[in-house]
Amino acid sequence: MRMVDIILKKRRGQELSTEEINFFIEGYTRENIPDYQAAAFLMAAFFQGLTPRETGDLTLAMARSGDQADLSSIPGRKVDKHSTGGVGDKTTLVLGPLVAAAGVPVAKMSGRGLGHTGGTIDKLESVPGFQVAMDNRSFLDQVNRVKLAVVAQTGHLAPADKKLYALRDVTATVDSIPLIAASVMSKKIAAGADAIVLDVKVGSGAFMKSPGEAFTLAGTMVDIGTRVGRQTVALVTDMDQPLGNAVGNALEVKEAIDTLKGKGPRDLRELCLTLGSEMILLAGLARDLETARSRLEQILDSGLALDKFREFITAQGGNAQIIERYELLPHAPIAQTVFADVEGYVREIQAEQVGLAAMTLGAGRATKDSAIDLSVGVVLHKKVGDKVNAGDPMFEIYATNRENAVLAEKIIRQAYSIGKEPPVRRNLILGKVTKEGVSEC
Amino acid sequence: MRMVDIILKKRRGQELSTEEINFFIEGYTRENIPDYQAAAFLMAAFFQGLTPRETGDLTLAMARSGDQADLSSIPGRKVDKHSTGGVGDKTTLVLGPLVAAAGVPVAKMSGRGLGHTGGTIDKLESVPGFQVAMDNRSFLDQVNRVKLAVVAQTGHLAPADKKLYALRDVTATVDSIPLIAASVMSKKIAAGADAIVLDVKVGSGAFMKSPGEAFTLAGTMVDIGTRVGRQTVALVTDMDQPLGNAVGNALEVKEAIDTLKGKGPRDLRELCLTLGSEMILLAGLARDLETARSRLEQILDSGLALDKFREFITAQGGNAQIIERYELLPHAPIAQTVFADVEGYVREIQAEQVGLAAMTLGAGRATKDSAIDLSVGVVLHKKVGDKVNAGDPMFEIYATNRENAVLAEKIIRQAYSIGKEPPVRRNLILGKVTKEGVSEC
Repeated sequence: MRMVDIILKKRRGQELSTEEINFFIEGYTRENIPDYQAAAFLMAAFFQGLTPRETGDLTLAMARSGDQADLSSIPGRKVDKHSTGGVGDKTTLVLGPLVAAAGVPVAKMSGRGLGHTGGTIDKLESVPGFQVAMDNRSFLDQVNRVKLAVVAQTGHLAPADKKLYALRDVTATVDSIPLIAASVMSKKIAAGADAIVLDVKVGSGAFMKSPGEAFTLAGTMVDIGTRVGRQTVALVTDMDQPLGNAVGNALEVKEAIDTLKGKGPRDLRELCLTLGSEMILLAGLARDLETARSRLEQILDSGLALDKFREFITAQGGNAQIIERYELLPHAPIAQTVFADVEGYVREIQAEQVGLAAMTLGAGRATKDSAIDLSVGVVLHKKVGDKVNAGDPMFEIYATNRENAVLAEKIIRQAYSIGKEPPVRRNLILGKVTKEGVSEC
Repeated sequence: MRMVDIILKKRRGQELSTEEINFFIEGYTRENIPDYQAAAFLMAAFFQGLTPRETGDLTLAMARSGDQADLSSIPGRKVDKHSTGGVGDKTTLVLGPLVAAAGVPVAKMSGRGLGHTGGTIDKLESVPGFQVAMDNRSFLDQVNRVKLAVVAQTGHLAPADKKLYALRDVTATVDSIPLIAASVMSKKIAAGADAIVLDVKVGSGAFMKSPGEAFTLAGTMVDIGTRVGRQTVALVTDMDQPLGNAVGNALEVKEAIDTLKGKGPRDLRELCLTLGSEMILLAGLARDLETARSRLEQILDSGLALDKFREFITAQGGNAQIIERYELLPHAPIAQTVFADVEGYVREIQAEQVGLAAMTLGAGRATKDSAIDLSVGVVLHKKVGDKVNAGDPMFEIYATNRENAVLAEKIIRQAYSIGKEPPVRRNLILGKVTKEGVSEC
């Protein structure tokens, strides 16, 4: 077998065999196949696409390219959740303890943030003492004991995906739906869960800008999961404006705790209940979504989810006093409120711009090796549909540097569109994709 | 400027600016741009194509990436000729002395053969003593004195093309018309001629298998030449069967000398007269093609072209006694004639198969670094249209190894199709492309 023939076959639009895909991924992982051949293959795949079978094979080959987590020592159906990334997405911080308190074992490997989207691991690191690295034994023990553990992904998990992702980034082959789907799913499959709930974000702050693309990606990932025997459900959810009000690591941890206390933003609570109900159902712990949801509402409102969060933070070495004393979290020296100078309704908040403003303040990484500032960020006081009067507080900036604060304020002001008429209401959940098909909300 | 943005722009089908193309070629030549980005670009260009303006810019950028020959010290219009490569194509060996004898200065840089097609430099090296390397001063002096010099292309001529060609070979991006055209023309432009006659081969033994592709390639190359101010004419010629009868280095030299003596195969003589007439016209040495042609016929038939060949061989250190004594050329220990076992007409001779048989004997290179045997090859006694009777000599094999001879015989037998009816006559010259347009024959 020769890589040049595999590239040619794909270039001509022919379907590759499982053996050919394995040859490529194994050879590339072992560095027998050079980057330039992989790059030509990726561009050919961008133009010719990959069939569902090829996409499934590519995913499995990447999942098998490194370590694969063995969660068999954890009783029960392990359910994982993955978001394709958005601005202000602190869902895992609420959802993890919520479903764990309901009995779902959550053994989660998370990533760091890149670009305008944040990462769960960065957020958790703003809790003093919290350890994101753990050996395998302790990880499994904690899931058995607490039902919840979150660790940073290592390079040994799907290394072929890691290499290919870096290559796609510099060869203009990132935005191919089968390649994105295979990348996400290879890591989830290697991470070992029995079932997967996907949160596919769509809108100005997401990688998928249109619902059409988002549903296609969701369908592709559900198909991969189904092919490899992992029950998979995808929700397509709104990321046209940031999720919740806070954007920035410590600020998002506070907002997640507020939500666990029953006083968080409505959209965040709603998304966590919806995703959580799917997880409960996949875990086999409720007979239908309604039952699952009312159980989760009860757990959230009774404080059981907050107790689970405390237990989780403590188990990973974090200082759980932050739950009552937010001042123990990193806090920025500069906090400034920006007020409205016009009257009307918020018609739009460009989520990507808000993410870029947070990055300007130091909350996100421009490149993989950038250092980040956990204390900085933005809190929005007005969201889409809200009435604004001149003089109302619009948003707050948390910064360590005056110049950055000025720049971020400018960016966020431009991210807001304020008009005379209230906007048409947009659904938070746009639809759901399962192996049976698509249902739009 | 970033290469990833240039790749993305091409991937989206947008036209690149001259600056962007120069950035790519300069960066790639200096190794600031890695192979993997060039590979992704080539595949994107394969799918999206290149506009005539982009193709012209790419050609010029590659032509300028290394040394550029300065032929200004040679008086008169220097005319170069290039063949896209075929089986048994020894045209340059006849055409060079023929037009030089008519007064056209020919300063030619030639390549070596690769795959089933032969190279002029290899053929010339079968003349004992012949030197294919020469310093620039001696090269120009010889053209001024003899009107003809042929040297091996060096790596300093269009090094960007050399790098890209090697990359295309391993990334399945060879067969893109604008990339092929830019590759050929970049070398011709760097080689410094004022005008160029292109012989675009079409058929089973050529890179272009169909007349449609061949005319498109011819048109693209003529367009490039015109854009950069080099008058360019392309003939599309038949390569469905080998040109002439001999395939193999020393065997082709003999056939070229036979042709210069007036006793060569008709198709080779005809092609040389046709290409030569175009060269004479471009050089401004005749008022029309008819005049040019009758002048060339006279030069050929009077022996002046043969004299020029002798002068040329001697000037480059070769032993001109080979002209009278073919036994001074490398000769193979095994010579065997293969006879027909059926009766009928030769309907087809798969040229590529004949080329591969010659390669099996050792006449061609499988890879750039393969050694070749100058003595071996094939001589066909029957060509398309010829009547065959059982027992007629069909072809001869010249070999140094009995096993290879058996294999080559088998391949060539299969290359021949013999049928009851004579085939439809195919034109040797299919058409001509100039900047004014296409004329088919």
